[in-house]
Amino acid sequence: MPPAAGPRNPGELFLAEIREQPAALLRLLDHKPDFDAVTKVMRERRPSVVRLVGHGSSDAAASFGVYAFGLLPGWTAMRDSISLTVYYDAKIDLSDSVVIGLSQSGETPDVVEYVKRARGRGAFTIGITNGTDSSLALAADATLGLAAGPERAVAASKTFLNTLAALVWVAGGAAGRGDEIAEGLRRVSNQLSETLESLEQAVSNVAMAFAYVGRMYVIGRGIEFGTAREVALKLTETCRVAAEPLTATDLAHGPIAALDSMFPVWTIASRDESLPAVVEAAARVIEAGATVVASGNAATEIEGALYVLPVPEPSHPILSPLLSVVPGQLFAGALAHAKGLDADYPVGLSKVTRAR
Amino acid sequence: MPPAAGPRNPGELFLAEIREQPAALLRLLDHKPDFDAVTKVMRERRPSVVRLVGHGSSDAAASFGVYAFGLLPGWTAMRDSISLTVYYDAKIDLSDSVVIGLSQSGETPDVVEYVKRARGRGAFTIGITNGTDSSLALAADATLGLAAGPERAVAASKTFLNTLAALVWVAGGAAGRGDEIAEGLRRVSNQLSETLESLEQAVSNVAMAFAYVGRMYVIGRGIEFGTAREVALKLTETCRVAAEPLTATDLAHGPIAALDSMFPVWTIASRDESLPAVVEAAARVIEAGATVVASGNAATEIEGALYVLPVPEPSHPILSPLLSVVPGQLFAGALAHAKGLDADYPVGLSKVTRAR
Repeated sequence: MPPAAGPRNPGELFLAEIREQPAALLRLLDHKPDFDAVTKVMRERRPSVVRLVGHGSSDAAASFGVYAFGLLPGWTAMRDSISLTVYYDAKIDLSDSVVIGLSQSGETPDVVEYVKRARGRGAFTIGITNGTDSSLALAADATLGLAAGPERAVAASKTFLNTLAALVWVAGGAAGRGDEIAEGLRRVSNQLSETLESLEQAVSNVAMAFAYVGRMYVIGRGIEFGTAREVALKLTETCRVAAEPLTATDLAHGPIAALDSMFPVWTIASRDESLPAVVEAAARVIEAGATVVASGNAATEIEGALYVLPVPEPSHPILSPLLSVVPGQLFAGALAHAKGLDADYPVGLSKVTRAR
Repeated sequence: MPPAAGPRNPGELFLAEIREQPAALLRLLDHKPDFDAVTKVMRERRPSVVRLVGHGSSDAAASFGVYAFGLLPGWTAMRDSISLTVYYDAKIDLSDSVVIGLSQSGETPDVVEYVKRARGRGAFTIGITNGTDSSLALAADATLGLAAGPERAVAASKTFLNTLAALVWVAGGAAGRGDEIAEGLRRVSNQLSETLESLEQAVSNVAMAFAYVGRMYVIGRGIEFGTAREVALKLTETCRVAAEPLTATDLAHGPIAALDSMFPVWTIASRDESLPAVVEAAARVIEAGATVVASGNAATEIEGALYVLPVPEPSHPILSPLLSVVPGQLFAGALAHAKGLDADYPVGLSKVTRAR
């Protein structure tokens, strides 16, 4: 629904929710007791696998979760196949698993069904959702609310950011480092507050230049692959651009052949072990004649980028995606505006996706 | 390298290798002792996780492997993050895992490095490769050769098909059903032989109509998601189309907003538990005004598809992808021809990808 009072400018809900992210992140940090309780159970369980399930932005966040668990407690986490359990009813042993169901609304049907079945088979199940009274919250053993406040634009922004925060906080807790991560998240909130306005101005130039673009690649590797997936999804849903997320290496294994000067590439470069691969991939893209936009806290390392959108460096590299997704969100909003589209209500989408 | 003798027509290597697939598949089936030896070790190990690693077509095959292991022995298999282990050096326990490294050449640097590290940490490591003297073969505890014969076109075809076959055969062996799967694969080879010629004719009409297409989605779910990934990759690398693979559900979570009449969708519909989701997704695509091509053994179930490319039904549903990928391969070859491109040697790619 549009706001109750007064006329709405297209895209204003989406932009308002992007701007609200520093505050929404702080609200999540008020829920330390919930996170402590959940991580206590997880540490006792010592799961052989953490299974992350979600669709759309929640699935992009799950890609980040794989790294948060891999790098903090050193646990194996995976984006699990929902269809194996929900449609094929495969007889996979889940008793030794922790399951994290991710859904902004908490009403995504097959995520809820997956969590129910996994719980029935002995997994410890956690719902991470903005809908604390939702079907997902009812189905799971424990719920971590996103505390993002109502999100009205169809394209997720603050619920995505808070999902990343919840995942890294819970992974930090599993490693016995929950408080340190919470402190880092608090600092991210400040860094975002200080950066948002200048980023908004910076993306508008890029958006003007890209008004007629129909296809893009978004590349990121490692901890930033989830960010690449989320930025590509924003561009697809709000701007009708065919934007595909790729790891730096995937790009070299085929897609680079499709590039030309009409096919820009958005790169996410953060200062960590994956940076050299991203720098190399960007060099290949430029050699192929495509325009490069560089974002992330190591954006200035991308030589030959036509546009550079740096963000601050957080206290821990694993927190970088919470900052580097923001230029992508703002760019999607600005590009939708440049294309004359309404980023708040993309044609053909609704806020709660009930598709199986 | 082009063939040594005589002039070469653009795309003829790729087409010849697609046509050779029934014979290549039979050659793989001559290697029963190798498969029996490997599956014996796997059954003794009873791994908590099977970790599949590969890039490009090998990674598309890994998506299929997740289902082959989930549905046959009921084991958890995942496409593992290479960067977590190779670049971040995450301290994840791999001792309880079986690792399957997938690489046509056996020379993909980070796949080889991953396998070395996993072996050093106690995993049982298997290389599935056409390069039986390759670095991957040297690095792994055991090697399963693809027996596909030399593949000269840069875009993989017969090595992809044989990688699917090797994965499903090894998963069948882990379930104590290796011989039954081998019999099914033998039948697939016959079915392919009988179908290839008529499929070649059928795809040429679609290719003519799509000569100016610049972007496509390829949708498949469950066992056919890997097929969707492979078909999208073929279209991207040989035809310079921005073709993105999506599950039927992913499509509804955003990308459907980007569709219009200039944005055709290739659907893969096979008769199994995922079919209703694919049928629903195709209906949504048609409602959005996009053209649908239906392939797979349940192609005729897709109402309103403008082009229908059915393939035979195999003895076991899990073998469907070995048949349903073929219309996609042939279409990529025909579309490259219609666009005046050389499917054998796409610009910017080489047969052995050394990018990290």
